[in-house]
Amino acid sequence: MALQEIIRTLIVETPSKPGNFAKVATAIGTARGNIGDIKIIKDGTLSTIRDISVKCESMEQLEQIIENVRAIGPNVNIHAVTDDVLKAHEGGKIHMKSRIDVRSLGDLQRIYTPGVASVCLDIQKDPEKARYFTSIGNSVAIVTDGTAILGLGNIGPVAGMPVMEGKAVLFDQFAGISGVPILLDTSDPDEVVETVKHIHQGFGGILLEDIGSPHCFEIEERLKKELNIPVMHDDQHGTAVVALASVLSASRSTAIDPKRAVIGQVGLGAAGLAICRMLMAYGVEEVYGIDRQQEAVDRLQNYGGQTLESLEQLMATCDIVLATTGVAGLIKPELVRPGQIILALSNPNPEITPEDALAAGAAFAADGRMVNNAVGFPGIFRGALNAGVSEITYPMLVAAAQAIANHTKPGDLIPNPLDPTVHQVVARAVEKAAQEQV
Amino acid sequence: MALQEIIRTLIVETPSKPGNFAKVATAIGTARGNIGDIKIIKDGTLSTIRDISVKCESMEQLEQIIENVRAIGPNVNIHAVTDDVLKAHEGGKIHMKSRIDVRSLGDLQRIYTPGVASVCLDIQKDPEKARYFTSIGNSVAIVTDGTAILGLGNIGPVAGMPVMEGKAVLFDQFAGISGVPILLDTSDPDEVVETVKHIHQGFGGILLEDIGSPHCFEIEERLKKELNIPVMHDDQHGTAVVALASVLSASRSTAIDPKRAVIGQVGLGAAGLAICRMLMAYGVEEVYGIDRQQEAVDRLQNYGGQTLESLEQLMATCDIVLATTGVAGLIKPELVRPGQIILALSNPNPEITPEDALAAGAAFAADGRMVNNAVGFPGIFRGALNAGVSEITYPMLVAAAQAIANHTKPGDLIPNPLDPTVHQVVARAVEKAAQEQV
Repeated sequence: MALQEIIRTLIVETPSKPGNFAKVATAIGTARGNIGDIKIIKDGTLSTIRDISVKCESMEQLEQIIENVRAIGPNVNIHAVTDDVLKAHEGGKIHMKSRIDVRSLGDLQRIYTPGVASVCLDIQKDPEKARYFTSIGNSVAIVTDGTAILGLGNIGPVAGMPVMEGKAVLFDQFAGISGVPILLDTSDPDEVVETVKHIHQGFGGILLEDIGSPHCFEIEERLKKELNIPVMHDDQHGTAVVALASVLSASRSTAIDPKRAVIGQVGLGAAGLAICRMLMAYGVEEVYGIDRQQEAVDRLQNYGGQTLESLEQLMATCDIVLATTGVAGLIKPELVRPGQIILALSNPNPEITPEDALAAGAAFAADGRMVNNAVGFPGIFRGALNAGVSEITYPMLVAAAQAIANHTKPGDLIPNPLDPTVHQVVARAVEKAAQEQV
Repeated sequence: MALQEIIRTLIVETPSKPGNFAKVATAIGTARGNIGDIKIIKDGTLSTIRDISVKCESMEQLEQIIENVRAIGPNVNIHAVTDDVLKAHEGGKIHMKSRIDVRSLGDLQRIYTPGVASVCLDIQKDPEKARYFTSIGNSVAIVTDGTAILGLGNIGPVAGMPVMEGKAVLFDQFAGISGVPILLDTSDPDEVVETVKHIHQGFGGILLEDIGSPHCFEIEERLKKELNIPVMHDDQHGTAVVALASVLSASRSTAIDPKRAVIGQVGLGAAGLAICRMLMAYGVEEVYGIDRQQEAVDRLQNYGGQTLESLEQLMATCDIVLATTGVAGLIKPELVRPGQIILALSNPNPEITPEDALAAGAAFAADGRMVNNAVGFPGIFRGALNAGVSEITYPMLVAAAQAIANHTKPGDLIPNPLDPTVHQVVARAVEKAAQEQV
């Protein structure tokens, strides 16, 4: 199972002579290990110690990598192999911190009784004041039922908690939002909707996360209708925003006009359906979707979308093809039409590798690793919270996608999510779109 | 309404000569302003500027204070009057912070996809690992329906949020716990229980807070029974722990043996009933409660408690009297028996002031301002989470009360909640009691 990527750090000591690190890199590469960050821990005259982050697919492969490095010779030592992923998650990745230091009884009286009573009464008189004197307006609940965690499927909400905490980390670091994981022990749409409704007053927005299809559709629609705060299912619309941004970037690289292009979406699950709707909202005239499940096809048609009969027909018809089926190798190279843009987004293994697609004549090709939805949701919610709107609408989402695409370097698909200005431009675009629609 | 205490900071400049600050203090005191923290802002040779925190009961009184200070003369200037309470609450008092800095794509891959997948699968295989690799085991939901916020009554959960955030601040600063406010839009016991059950997997414990009587009793009992994590209603048991600690401290001051004393509780609401049960759990042989409501009296009897007919009978019978009725001045001085311990805990105005009780012959008297439940709940939950128990039991609560009393300086009722060692000794006592009962 290739998604279960193993990330380890090898602490390796080599003689401080040119060529020695290259031997280590070669030894790792020979066993198909993927080298990540490298940090010099000791830079001595005689020897150098490095933390070398290595990704691989199995423990057997890791053993082989270690064996290869050891075989270089007695001058090269592996001091330790550490699991930095587990270390990074130890004790959890988030903590509800006080924004105030309580150092004196005076502080205590201000933030707690009796001082707090005056703030409570102010809010009771004018509920709008809760936006200023509580964290509510800056908090987003990250709600999951654990039924579709990453590509791992229904592993339950507790096993999915590391993902929810990861989202909270990104909310905090990219957008200054207080993200609060809410783990639901039910997937029943009625119970999910009731539960979220009962707790929603504590939050300025709701991010639905890794909730499976098809119950995610009903849950999101009902919550959007019944709550007066922004609700967004990230696996649908967050992904669709980043997919639209990718289409815009790829079109620019190939001088295709995306609004006039014929665009096909292979797979109409949560992400695929949302991508079709986003493309239509952007103004693409010809969008076609296909899916093996009639129910999914019907769903697209209910939203006014067009469908085709087969993958062959879609590949033959479309200038731009997106795929989110989860089926590795689904698109055979012989189906690729010269000059096509192909975004095969399934993780960890795409419907067709970019190499194969380009070799078959595609003008532009990418896989899911190049499309990180971390560039989307933090700025989208930051913008919606800043605007104080009750809903995240298509014009806001399209504005987010355009901001992402405009911020992308030529040749890239999306910007580096670690670039803080991305999240700022997304937030501003969303806030502006929100204000314009009033 | 005296609870609505107004706290303001006067920024006052006086000549740097002895006696000038005393004039300011006198001016404030003459208008019955209560002086709190004072900080020197500028310590010049000619003039001194101080931040003077002042508490008062009304805006009219505040005006009078300002007028009195201005009347001292042209050398004394009030530069500003600031509302530090509101300032302290601006933007909310809490934020869900990342415990990790995401600085490189390697960091992102470790805390988010793809690295996070291996942690999810580890937890799926062995759910116990969630204690180590997520924040769940260190998080407590602070759940309210807003029906009994402080002494303000049913002002709703949003207006109560500043109190919930205050609890989260104390959890963080006193016990390193991640406290997450959950605001419920329902008070129906069935809906509250269902909602908390549906979200409980994300938390290591549940603190029920400011939920009114009588629905608080059913809600707590059902949640304790149905959940496998500690559940505690602070207004019942947190308050009762601190009340028992106060009884122990006061007894020590007066050489009364609390287990052999006759103890009376006036008022059998959430706090009063819990105090009776706590005293019985501690081993006090004769505990009597009274209440005007038959329903409340029945509730105590159902727990095996004894009742009396009237306040007069209780005052005549008991060595130690506690009162939590919310009725100011309920206990007339002529009812006080010489040598009695009287803890009249209603806020902001007690059933009898300590001055009046002592004048009437009481051996020890205190009011609610001297009994801050902030010394209880943080350490109680820290201990319960450390022990990994599924329930907070009476032996654990009694141990907490004894630890608080043992940590109290002679003559005081409870320790200063800002003393971090209090929370440590409470946590240790609770953890030890939890382990002993296994």
